[in-house]
Amino acid sequence: MSALTEIERVKMCEGWLVTYEHMSASNHCTMRFSVFLPPQAEHGKVPALYFLSGLTCTDENFMVKAGAQVHAAEHGVALIAPDTSPRGDEVPDDPDAYDYGKGAGFYVNATEEPMATHYHMYDYVVDELPALIESELPIRDARSVTGHSMGGHGALIVALKNPGKYRSVSAFAPICAPTQCPWGEKIFNGYLGSVEAGAEYDATRLVSQAQEKLTLLIDQGDDDEFLIEQLKPQLLEAACQEHDHPLELRMRSGYDHSYFFIQTFIGEHIAHHAKALKG
Amino acid sequence: MSALTEIERVKMCEGWLVTYEHMSASNHCTMRFSVFLPPQAEHGKVPALYFLSGLTCTDENFMVKAGAQVHAAEHGVALIAPDTSPRGDEVPDDPDAYDYGKGAGFYVNATEEPMATHYHMYDYVVDELPALIESELPIRDARSVTGHSMGGHGALIVALKNPGKYRSVSAFAPICAPTQCPWGEKIFNGYLGSVEAGAEYDATRLVSQAQEKLTLLIDQGDDDEFLIEQLKPQLLEAACQEHDHPLELRMRSGYDHSYFFIQTFIGEHIAHHAKALKG
Repeated sequence: MSALTEIERVKMCEGWLVTYEHMSASNHCTMRFSVFLPPQAEHGKVPALYFLSGLTCTDENFMVKAGAQVHAAEHGVALIAPDTSPRGDEVPDDPDAYDYGKGAGFYVNATEEPMATHYHMYDYVVDELPALIESELPIRDARSVTGHSMGGHGALIVALKNPGKYRSVSAFAPICAPTQCPWGEKIFNGYLGSVEAGAEYDATRLVSQAQEKLTLLIDQGDDDEFLIEQLKPQLLEAACQEHDHPLELRMRSGYDHSYFFIQTFIGEHIAHHAKALKG
Repeated sequence: MSALTEIERVKMCEGWLVTYEHMSASNHCTMRFSVFLPPQAEHGKVPALYFLSGLTCTDENFMVKAGAQVHAAEHGVALIAPDTSPRGDEVPDDPDAYDYGKGAGFYVNATEEPMATHYHMYDYVVDELPALIESELPIRDARSVTGHSMGGHGALIVALKNPGKYRSVSAFAPICAPTQCPWGEKIFNGYLGSVEAGAEYDATRLVSQAQEKLTLLIDQGDDDEFLIEQLKPQLLEAACQEHDHPLELRMRSGYDHSYFFIQTFIGEHIAHHAKALKG
């Protein structure tokens, strides 16, 4: 019996967009994710690009708004969009906050109660989900990772912390130094007990210890409302220079933080990842 | 002073996605529409493709979900997405029906009260909006039209009824014979006083009188839940055969009625229109 329950299946770009549910051992709840299987998956296993979404998102936003599937179908790459947090009535939440609790898993393993039981999105994204997908779906163990905002942070840290696990990494408007911005400080205090405990989930801190010199490809709009207070790519840039870590930071004139920005550059990112995944 | 009020402006695909409001003389209310101006519009006037949306949509759905802008930017074509009905507290509606009143203008001129004062979406889309856009924006009088479902019906009828006005026409899963389906019967009875009065807004009826042999390019999924009861492309196909009107009806295996279907084929449609608009 499959560990995956199929919720919905829609044909698009000659492939299939499928939503699955499964019981997550990491998060102790039912989790949902979306997969776009390109037409090439009919004939054999394909490599996969993980897209980690931002605050408030589910597995749906990327698949509906990014216009990514046409590029993935062209390159023969599967797209995987996990949810952004554990879900369900039993999962603790702050319903008044968009940036804490449900929709804000932050791709870390919480250590503090009441979050510690369910909020293990780091283990979920890095270990549980790829193992499940590569065992149940026509997807082989060639992985790349990208993401947006909180999910851009997630993409950077899972790549930096797991040498050999990903072929390439990129991010759209990522939170680059979460121990030095309000979103990160709030999450780390709540989920980990202190801001400093977040150092192991902070890309700007992690480049000093990276055992693999995977290029960090980042697109960032210069008209992004969160750029100055929350995203801070200049801190990551300084750390990469100091520790000789390859970074391609492309500041994009006039672009904001929206999915219209992602839609503009997703084709370039998928081409970048496809090259690494098929090389 | 411009007749247009700019509501929002977002950079994408090196062009601009802009939302405008204006007082509509046709509909006697404030109307909103969205325009994607491709980067080529910085250097001179560009041609325009109108996208008429389906039931329940506003000007936003197409711009958020279709992934069209990347193709429009490539071809140097502006995209115009009108709203689907008049709006505002003064506009009569059936709030319990998704297929009557607001969100369901059906691209006709209502003759029956209480709808007759405001529901003039045919005049709005055919005359008022292009005149406004071509006078206020960097868009020249080269027009093509497409649409989805109710808006596919709209695209077909505005092209068939206005020889010389559009360079090309296409549709995604259009309502092909509205005098012979429940959606059309309900609208025509309410807005026009009888189903038969809808004959002048029925593509299958109009092909017999078309003064211009513009090819009708239609994509239709064969797994579309509305195909049998509401869309009925076989009736249009028979009329086109009888009256020797050029039709390219492409039945798409496995596709449904969603924006994922549109996202799959919008690139082909925009290439088709760009050729006509720039020829």
